[in-house]
Amino acid sequence: MNVLPKAVVRVIESFARLPGIGPRTAQRLAFYMTHVPQTELDKFADSVRNIKTGTVLCDLCKIISDQSPCSICSSPVREKSIICVVEQSSDVIALERTGKYKGSYHVLHGSIDPLNNIGPDEIYIVDLLRRIRIQKPRVREIIFATNPNMEGEATAMYIQKQILDLRIQNSEILMTRLAHGLPIGADIEYADERTLSRALEGRREY
Amino acid sequence: MNVLPKAVVRVIESFARLPGIGPRTAQRLAFYMTHVPQTELDKFADSVRNIKTGTVLCDLCKIISDQSPCSICSSPVREKSIICVVEQSSDVIALERTGKYKGSYHVLHGSIDPLNNIGPDEIYIVDLLRRIRIQKPRVREIIFATNPNMEGEATAMYIQKQILDLRIQNSEILMTRLAHGLPIGADIEYADERTLSRALEGRREY
Repeated sequence: MNVLPKAVVRVIESFARLPGIGPRTAQRLAFYMTHVPQTELDKFADSVRNIKTGTVLCDLCKIISDQSPCSICSSPVREKSIICVVEQSSDVIALERTGKYKGSYHVLHGSIDPLNNIGPDEIYIVDLLRRIRIQKPRVREIIFATNPNMEGEATAMYIQKQILDLRIQNSEILMTRLAHGLPIGADIEYADERTLSRALEGRREY
Repeated sequence: MNVLPKAVVRVIESFARLPGIGPRTAQRLAFYMTHVPQTELDKFADSVRNIKTGTVLCDLCKIISDQSPCSICSSPVREKSIICVVEQSSDVIALERTGKYKGSYHVLHGSIDPLNNIGPDEIYIVDLLRRIRIQKPRVREIIFATNPNMEGEATAMYIQKQILDLRIQNSEILMTRLAHGLPIGADIEYADERTLSRALEGRREY
């Protein structure tokens, strides 16, 4: 006998559409919500409804932000001549958490992924190339921080080629990528062979 | 530099308040939602907002339902003289999934938990006792399906005592509880000693 009320089923379906949330977790969350005060439910609902209307993409770096230009692009202390290219806004959050980077960013909003019909024009590559072409001060370095998987690497390689094709006069643009290697706290025993190969190749002197 | 837009922070906070969802998962879900079409966001928001207004508690068994009495209490094929006592509506869903139970339920909406200030009056025990007192057909069996932990066991014992105190004339009420033992598919090697003790005590002849 199916005894789930429709209103609960609808919440289960809402949650189950989210990545990493299976049907069991969705059901647990839905039943939890039946005990939550209505004011909290309203707050939850409003926050979800307004996540897009309450945000904009920064005109320059395309990060999801409160305003455009975003706080990083409009900050006088950030180095504009260095651009770190990432796939998602959440990657910026992760890099900012390190506190080690003082340059600017460019968010592609995805990676080139032919299997899922995402070509170079579906992500913000043209905007990056325009920035490189017209920006003052001139761009000195592009740091590629796309994900270390097939799509991320292919995207970085594609963009490198496009930048070389720009043939910017009297200026060399340094192109770098994040180091690959063992994550801090990892066990060498359990490291996969590709990570371990990269860690060997990239070994450094003490 | 804190670059998270407020609208995204609000969704992160909404998700992070849910049980089993940590700050990292909440952030991942929030960023995912910035890519979801607005109509989907609206549907999600509406489902959450209406989870309580769209449901009622069944007057009889207190399950969260579309209508009162619920589909189980109003079904002519369900055995009304057997009541299975559970802590949550979601426990009913799990038991219904077995397809093995044809009696009715009573949902307590919690367990007696003095450490969290939940006494017998905070959950639907009085309603269960009234059902037992006045229901026709008379209740013949109460199956305790509270959780096999300290609070669940204490709740079952408390209710048993209350039922005995009812001194219902000319009628014996059978009180049973779900069997404890090894879960199907489990490794004996990894079973905890209390489960294994219960499995030994409850061993059955082939």
